[in-house]
Amino acid sequence: MKSAIVLLSGGLDSATVLAMARRDGWQCRALSIDYGQRHRAELDAAKRVAAALGAVEHRLVALDLTVFGGSALTDRSIDVPSQASTGIPVTYVPARNTIFLALALAYAEVSGSQAIFIGVNAIDYSGYPDCRPEFLAAFAKVANLGTKRAVEGERVTIEAPIVGMTKADIVRRGTGLGVDFSLTVSCYNSDAAGRACGRCDACRFRRQGFAEAGVADPTRYQG
Amino acid sequence: MKSAIVLLSGGLDSATVLAMARRDGWQCRALSIDYGQRHRAELDAAKRVAAALGAVEHRLVALDLTVFGGSALTDRSIDVPSQASTGIPVTYVPARNTIFLALALAYAEVSGSQAIFIGVNAIDYSGYPDCRPEFLAAFAKVANLGTKRAVEGERVTIEAPIVGMTKADIVRRGTGLGVDFSLTVSCYNSDAAGRACGRCDACRFRRQGFAEAGVADPTRYQG
Repeated sequence: MKSAIVLLSGGLDSATVLAMARRDGWQCRALSIDYGQRHRAELDAAKRVAAALGAVEHRLVALDLTVFGGSALTDRSIDVPSQASTGIPVTYVPARNTIFLALALAYAEVSGSQAIFIGVNAIDYSGYPDCRPEFLAAFAKVANLGTKRAVEGERVTIEAPIVGMTKADIVRRGTGLGVDFSLTVSCYNSDAAGRACGRCDACRFRRQGFAEAGVADPTRYQG
Repeated sequence: MKSAIVLLSGGLDSATVLAMARRDGWQCRALSIDYGQRHRAELDAAKRVAAALGAVEHRLVALDLTVFGGSALTDRSIDVPSQASTGIPVTYVPARNTIFLALALAYAEVSGSQAIFIGVNAIDYSGYPDCRPEFLAAFAKVANLGTKRAVEGERVTIEAPIVGMTKADIVRRGTGLGVDFSLTVSCYNSDAAGRACGRCDACRFRRQGFAEAGVADPTRYQG
């Protein structure tokens, strides 16, 4: 059976990616990273999503990126903006997707997986450099050179099935595949119970996605 | 002043690389990774080496790779071989250098560094896939696509100055630059005091390197 690693954040995008991979017949191993992110409720969400969507395994790796900081998500002294900003947002975490893909590559190697699925999106988050197709293509070359399995001629592909979708597309696709979005947490400022602030970038894109898709928004908001 | 990240394991190779980078005028920030490795004395060694060779900063990142295992260095149920083996050794850690370079890239981004130095070597350790020049070249492409600084046109290079040297060459070069190799720990089976087993691959290559270079071996051995 074909086997894949799915990077699972606990948000709406990666939940949809996991559902898409499952629908396409992949046996999925979910990987979440506890990197010291401000929005810790997403890790609980990832656990619920992995179970609900039939991942055969779910591993959580602890990696303290607050050592580097440089982002509103890993440095508590930088506020998450409550209004839209121009350019690369302060919620960008330095080299995050390179790090996450590298960890997924290790997991793919030990599990003998043929693919790594990642829920990056170049439309709504075009400000993030490590969500672009050319970045993913470059990482695929690294993945096919830097492991023992690569030397043995086994290939691994980097799959980003929602990279070109709008948030509304993703909501529609996930809904069609039976994803329970009430399990997911996207907010950068969620409280301990996983309730969303409704004001950060992640909340705004998510809310707009549900509205444009004509799907009822199951998000629990604070206050 | 030009600024670099130097991946520092605490061993002989990366200590020499740090000395080479310093000699070439780089302001160096050392990065060590506590990945759950069996040979933990190398982390203490890294701290001593960073201080002795004038790194302006030394950061230690905790990342639990025992979650994946798959290597004699991260899975205590797999023994470190005490004799030479053929092919890729069981001390290979899945995707380790991809992960380490990704973390160094994050550090390079937040510190505004122009280079990442890594002490990989394709001669003595030709069995490790992620020590090959083509792997490093592929990672450089990722590094120059996947960060905010890359989008802003700032380049980062991957420097592997000892990739083509024999262990004896490295010993000679380090000695010439005044590296105190008694501070370093290479052994995969070192005890808590940092004394080497004398039998693992790392010990054998190291001992042979000193012998071939005609340099007195300052390594403290067990028993």
